[in-house]
Amino acid sequence: MTIGSSLPDLLGIRLPIIQAPMAGVSSPAMAAAVSKAGALGSIGVGATDAAGARAMIAEVRARSAGPLNVNVFAHRPPIADPATEAAWIAKLSPDFKALDTAPPGQLTEIYRSFVEDDDMLALLIEQRPSVVSFHFGLPDEAAVRALRDAGIVLLASATSLTEARAISAAGIHAVVAQGWEAGGHRGTFDPDAPDDRIGTMALTRLLVRELDLPVIAAGGIMDGAGIAAALMLGAAAAQLGTAFIASDESLADKGYRAALTSDAANHTIMTRVISGRPARSLANRFTALGLDIPPRDVPAYPIAYDLGKALHVAGKTRGEFGYGAQWAGQGAPLARAMPAARLVQTLGAELEQALGAGRQTGGRRDKS
Amino acid sequence: MTIGSSLPDLLGIRLPIIQAPMAGVSSPAMAAAVSKAGALGSIGVGATDAAGARAMIAEVRARSAGPLNVNVFAHRPPIADPATEAAWIAKLSPDFKALDTAPPGQLTEIYRSFVEDDDMLALLIEQRPSVVSFHFGLPDEAAVRALRDAGIVLLASATSLTEARAISAAGIHAVVAQGWEAGGHRGTFDPDAPDDRIGTMALTRLLVRELDLPVIAAGGIMDGAGIAAALMLGAAAAQLGTAFIASDESLADKGYRAALTSDAANHTIMTRVISGRPARSLANRFTALGLDIPPRDVPAYPIAYDLGKALHVAGKTRGEFGYGAQWAGQGAPLARAMPAARLVQTLGAELEQALGAGRQTGGRRDKS
Repeated sequence: MTIGSSLPDLLGIRLPIIQAPMAGVSSPAMAAAVSKAGALGSIGVGATDAAGARAMIAEVRARSAGPLNVNVFAHRPPIADPATEAAWIAKLSPDFKALDTAPPGQLTEIYRSFVEDDDMLALLIEQRPSVVSFHFGLPDEAAVRALRDAGIVLLASATSLTEARAISAAGIHAVVAQGWEAGGHRGTFDPDAPDDRIGTMALTRLLVRELDLPVIAAGGIMDGAGIAAALMLGAAAAQLGTAFIASDESLADKGYRAALTSDAANHTIMTRVISGRPARSLANRFTALGLDIPPRDVPAYPIAYDLGKALHVAGKTRGEFGYGAQWAGQGAPLARAMPAARLVQTLGAELEQALGAGRQTGGRRDKS
Repeated sequence: MTIGSSLPDLLGIRLPIIQAPMAGVSSPAMAAAVSKAGALGSIGVGATDAAGARAMIAEVRARSAGPLNVNVFAHRPPIADPATEAAWIAKLSPDFKALDTAPPGQLTEIYRSFVEDDDMLALLIEQRPSVVSFHFGLPDEAAVRALRDAGIVLLASATSLTEARAISAAGIHAVVAQGWEAGGHRGTFDPDAPDDRIGTMALTRLLVRELDLPVIAAGGIMDGAGIAAALMLGAAAAQLGTAFIASDESLADKGYRAALTSDAANHTIMTRVISGRPARSLANRFTALGLDIPPRDVPAYPIAYDLGKALHVAGKTRGEFGYGAQWAGQGAPLARAMPAARLVQTLGAELEQALGAGRQTGGRRDKS
């Protein structure tokens, strides 16, 4: 396992494609299908504990002997702020009331950050998935060393050159360049710091030029042409999330799938009102609430998410899906509903075709 | 001149590269150098009148017999709003005062939109540049027909699928897919409508998939690798603006060039405070003013720009360059200072190399 060797070789995959970990959307069945098809399957365990993660890993392994990426949330643990939380509950109360429900009386920290979850660290070292990836930041030096010493390849998300440099300095094997167009939670280390909102194209190129470690492009990539573009930018692989939301193995509910395959897919928005951290969702009733709300009014992640999930449940039981966390990137209109394995095969064939077309015409193509 | 023929052939260029028209930054010397080197040189005449445009076209032609793109601003003419304008002058007065200057007493519409500039239309038909491009919208059907009948190839900027469809329906030959990361003025038709802020990667791919006309990718593209990526997405060509700002022929002033080649290049922001329309600039004193200002407080484009330019002049005479319209895209840290012709040659060589590397390794490259 040498840095500088081909990243696909390092990850044990035939295709330079990573199915993005999407807590609540990706599933063990999806990860297994993707890995068996030659790409890297991923599960997100940030929304569960070590026992839940153990069960998910076992489920993947029962289905596939292929490589597996286990993603954890390494956010700065929130500091509870009862006044902000009470005001936030009051602010969203009319929406609960319109659904004939009462909001919860108080909010809790529904997920434990990996940076203080020793059980999760121990589980990963015991289970040794081939890859572990970090989102929202990095764990401490000892945790990184322990995972590396266990033979696990480490990835981490960066939304800026500054974050990417921190990732490189921490001894992570490769960096995921998450562009502004990416769906779901933005991996920003400090959600309250100014954000330059750099798109995938510029961020990938910048990181490839400035860093010595392999770069994985993420955000707005939906098909083989997009993967080929990422490779041209110097990325070692592409990570696709939204492309897999409509796949058979996805946990996306009916309302989410319906929105994704409708005109709604043309409108995504970055908002922190759903969870407390900036994340890109299909524009819906919930994101509309956030248009005029200053960031400081929203409780910290994941405390705000406790209320967001309650509101979604309240809506869903009455057939109102517009309060869901319908995470999606800007490429959403290009999502395809099919089994995950077939999607991977399709992406591989499209990638070959795109690279071949580039070869034949030397850049004089008009349309693909 | 058939739609569907190769766009570079249609534009009369060897390389699938367009130097973006940048009113106030690009120059006739730049356009001539670019066209002689095998790409499409452009001038922006949106900030001048027909007589000024005539002189600029003559200057290009004295230097090059190559193709030329003349860009016009086809914005909806502003409706003056004295109350908003007076409040805006008052709002910026402290900044003028800190520079020992008084703001102007009132603001004027400093540029005439192409949609009501019959002299400019007549000049273009008389001069017949090989290409005319529209930003901020489209002129009426009669103007489009007259330009087409004169044998001029027409381009127009789109920031969304909706705008691109309007461009296609109007009989424009090719669409410029301007991603959110692009520097300078965003080409949005209606700056007050909701903006999905779609990045170059997703927008290009979406337009290629949904439209029958050639797509030119713009935004965040700084080198041959970026151009190769655009071609992989199915674009027929790439348009680069920020890449040319530091070129010898650029009109960028000393403060702008210094900022572009410093750490400041890592921070760009979309703001409407400088001109009245959303535009991406290097973050500076002026853009900082806009962080807390609601869009409705800023007068319409280009009326607000009258004050913005006055503030820049006031600053510049005292050595304060931070009030400049330092337009730049998110790829700004990758800008290179060299003669424009050499930049075009470099881009062409890098493009060949990127496409060749993609060919040799079939997508298994780690770094370029």
